[in-house]
Amino acid sequence: MSKAEFSPPRGTRDFYPEDLRLRSWLFDRFREVARRFGFEEVDAPVVEHAELFQRKAGEEIVEQLYHFHLHDRHLALRPELTPSLARMVIARQGALRLPLRWFAIPQCWRYERATRGRRREHYQWNMDVWGEPDVTAEAELIAALFGATDALGLAAGDVKLRLSHRGLLEGVVRRVDPREEVFQPICVVLDKLEKIGAEAVVEQLSGATGGIRLPRAAAEDLVAGLSARGLAEAARLAGPGSPALGDLERLLGLLDAYGLAARVGFDASVVRGLAYYTGIVFEARDAGGKLRALAGGGRYDRLLESLGGRPLAAVGFGFGDAVILELLAEKKRLPELPRRLDAVVYPFGDAERADAIHLAETLRARGESVELVLGTLKPKRALADADHAGAVRIYLVGPDERTRGVAKVRELATGREHDEPLPAAAS
Amino acid sequence: MSKAEFSPPRGTRDFYPEDLRLRSWLFDRFREVARRFGFEEVDAPVVEHAELFQRKAGEEIVEQLYHFHLHDRHLALRPELTPSLARMVIARQGALRLPLRWFAIPQCWRYERATRGRRREHYQWNMDVWGEPDVTAEAELIAALFGATDALGLAAGDVKLRLSHRGLLEGVVRRVDPREEVFQPICVVLDKLEKIGAEAVVEQLSGATGGIRLPRAAAEDLVAGLSARGLAEAARLAGPGSPALGDLERLLGLLDAYGLAARVGFDASVVRGLAYYTGIVFEARDAGGKLRALAGGGRYDRLLESLGGRPLAAVGFGFGDAVILELLAEKKRLPELPRRLDAVVYPFGDAERADAIHLAETLRARGESVELVLGTLKPKRALADADHAGAVRIYLVGPDERTRGVAKVRELATGREHDEPLPAAAS
Repeated sequence: MSKAEFSPPRGTRDFYPEDLRLRSWLFDRFREVARRFGFEEVDAPVVEHAELFQRKAGEEIVEQLYHFHLHDRHLALRPELTPSLARMVIARQGALRLPLRWFAIPQCWRYERATRGRRREHYQWNMDVWGEPDVTAEAELIAALFGATDALGLAAGDVKLRLSHRGLLEGVVRRVDPREEVFQPICVVLDKLEKIGAEAVVEQLSGATGGIRLPRAAAEDLVAGLSARGLAEAARLAGPGSPALGDLERLLGLLDAYGLAARVGFDASVVRGLAYYTGIVFEARDAGGKLRALAGGGRYDRLLESLGGRPLAAVGFGFGDAVILELLAEKKRLPELPRRLDAVVYPFGDAERADAIHLAETLRARGESVELVLGTLKPKRALADADHAGAVRIYLVGPDERTRGVAKVRELATGREHDEPLPAAAS
Repeated sequence: MSKAEFSPPRGTRDFYPEDLRLRSWLFDRFREVARRFGFEEVDAPVVEHAELFQRKAGEEIVEQLYHFHLHDRHLALRPELTPSLARMVIARQGALRLPLRWFAIPQCWRYERATRGRRREHYQWNMDVWGEPDVTAEAELIAALFGATDALGLAAGDVKLRLSHRGLLEGVVRRVDPREEVFQPICVVLDKLEKIGAEAVVEQLSGATGGIRLPRAAAEDLVAGLSARGLAEAARLAGPGSPALGDLERLLGLLDAYGLAARVGFDASVVRGLAYYTGIVFEARDAGGKLRALAGGGRYDRLLESLGGRPLAAVGFGFGDAVILELLAEKKRLPELPRRLDAVVYPFGDAERADAIHLAETLRARGESVELVLGTLKPKRALADADHAGAVRIYLVGPDERTRGVAKVRELATGREHDEPLPAAAS
């Protein structure tokens, strides 16, 4: 193997113990919030049939599919979990009691040129409600999202959630172009506004390539409409009697009841890049606006139909593991997570080994985390190792202790020592 | 999508909530035992450079590699974790304090014809010690392995561990064929004894194909030698002064100190199918011998060198998630794992929604798992759903309760009811 091969494949990560502790800390908080909200954990294979993820709207997530052919199958590493969940719901549709509250923490993959320093895999906390058309589902999900940022130690003002409604956008688009098939591709282009700028978006909407070909003035109007903020401007954009506006008003009212009014607001520029959203869409970002989105989601009431299932309302969000760690680092909220070890048991030599084994096993049976010194070490080295491992205590079992039927226990923080009787042999 | 596509790809699994609860129960026990033994959790990418896994010995694990070409890279879904761990150790060799006690629960993949009903992915609990040449490391690992079968509720007699030593086998092989390059391929063939029978093994060792070409009589002697059981026969096989025999004797003595003497024994037929083992090899099986191996492992002191690192002693085992669940099912030790939900909060209508939200959020802040009824449900349906979800209590918030500033609390097991004051709004 060449030296370069000692690295993981480009865009992927190894998790050494300290990395894994941070990952577990994050996932434990996601799981704890999901549990409090009554969500059940699920999972699906990291490899799926590529066809499950392929759609026609030109989404970045599909263009970057990590796919390959193997033994006549066209397979892909999942870029997102939602289509797999949809497949699982369809497979048991009729037998599952609705609404489902499901969560997962899948690893997802995308094949992106790694030049931007972005990774090709990430973990994403997914929370979805299946079978509930009412925006009370969106409200619960958004409350859980903030439940997580709170549980991770962020202040209430650190994260803002902006929301909009695909139905509102659809109304605006329909007025300039009634073709049904262009709406999803238009959403995918509008979502790039922040990344590529207004001029490039207008170009993609009106240009000869890409198949949308809006009149240039209509494209400019559409982009201008995305600057609407707050419910009053939403109402102007929506026109009278818009069901989308009704959803937005009702959702903001519910979020007020959760005590979240100050953290959320209408923002027409929130479109989200997935083609399949049909209703409310939202994204959470750092209040400073310096980082990419922490989390994003929305309602996708027609996904099951599009995959061949019976119609079923659904809404959910994904919350990645990358940007939240950047934000926690910036806010100095990353936890100290030292290794935890209750005790080291150190036999001076082979003659003390059996007694040390009995002692280690006795402590473990009590639930303690115990490192037994392997092989033969000098006392100085054993003490330095125990210190380095962050052990609370070291049990020294030397010839003298063995004769007296005890272990010498040293508390590593204080250096204080006392004797404890050695246990009898395990049965 | 065709109806067949609602299944996960052949040989892979979906985890619905009840499946995920069982998986978490199993993994939690693996993690708890690893913690008690002072092991630290690590992880590596599920996709690696294919070259990391490719060896020349004809192992099944390499033949079944799930590999593919993508953008000029030759990648593979990991069939095992050990080479990734070796890569991680090499990348930081010199900076890591030895010995390392690392564990992981990776999902591993192999592309096997699924006709035998075997899966193409499984999870495997890996426990490895890096940097300790002494068999005290093997003893700790084997004690942890039994720690897990105990923690999973199996009886002491349910699982037996058989062990042997590649060095002992190597001595026997060298006497009939001194060529260094044939030893690993011979091990790979000998490992198939149980699966394909003695005659087929002799054929593969002595036949024209496969490149080993032992004299037929030597091949037969070798296979006959695998029937040795117990230390006395090991000594006969090893010849005087064998270091391998010394390791075996010392390890069995240590396991006696752990109270495991009745569960372990020498068995020359244990070879293990991985080419890279160099010392002690072992496998754990159900005592009835009906199932495949539950776990297997051994010492691989030359793997780091072979990958380009500096020499480093290492030993470890893998413990899969499939056979243990079969054994637990057979022994009727699979746990009942119902969904756990503390409470359902049920607002009768929109007028009670805000109060219900405050109540749900108050209970959640206390750590309770709370499902808030979404949308508008009839009381009968809300009660049936709460029952079905296994909730302990349901909080009924109707117009009458709201007027009185209370929720009616019904304990679902007994039907007993009492009132509790509604909390004030969230700040």
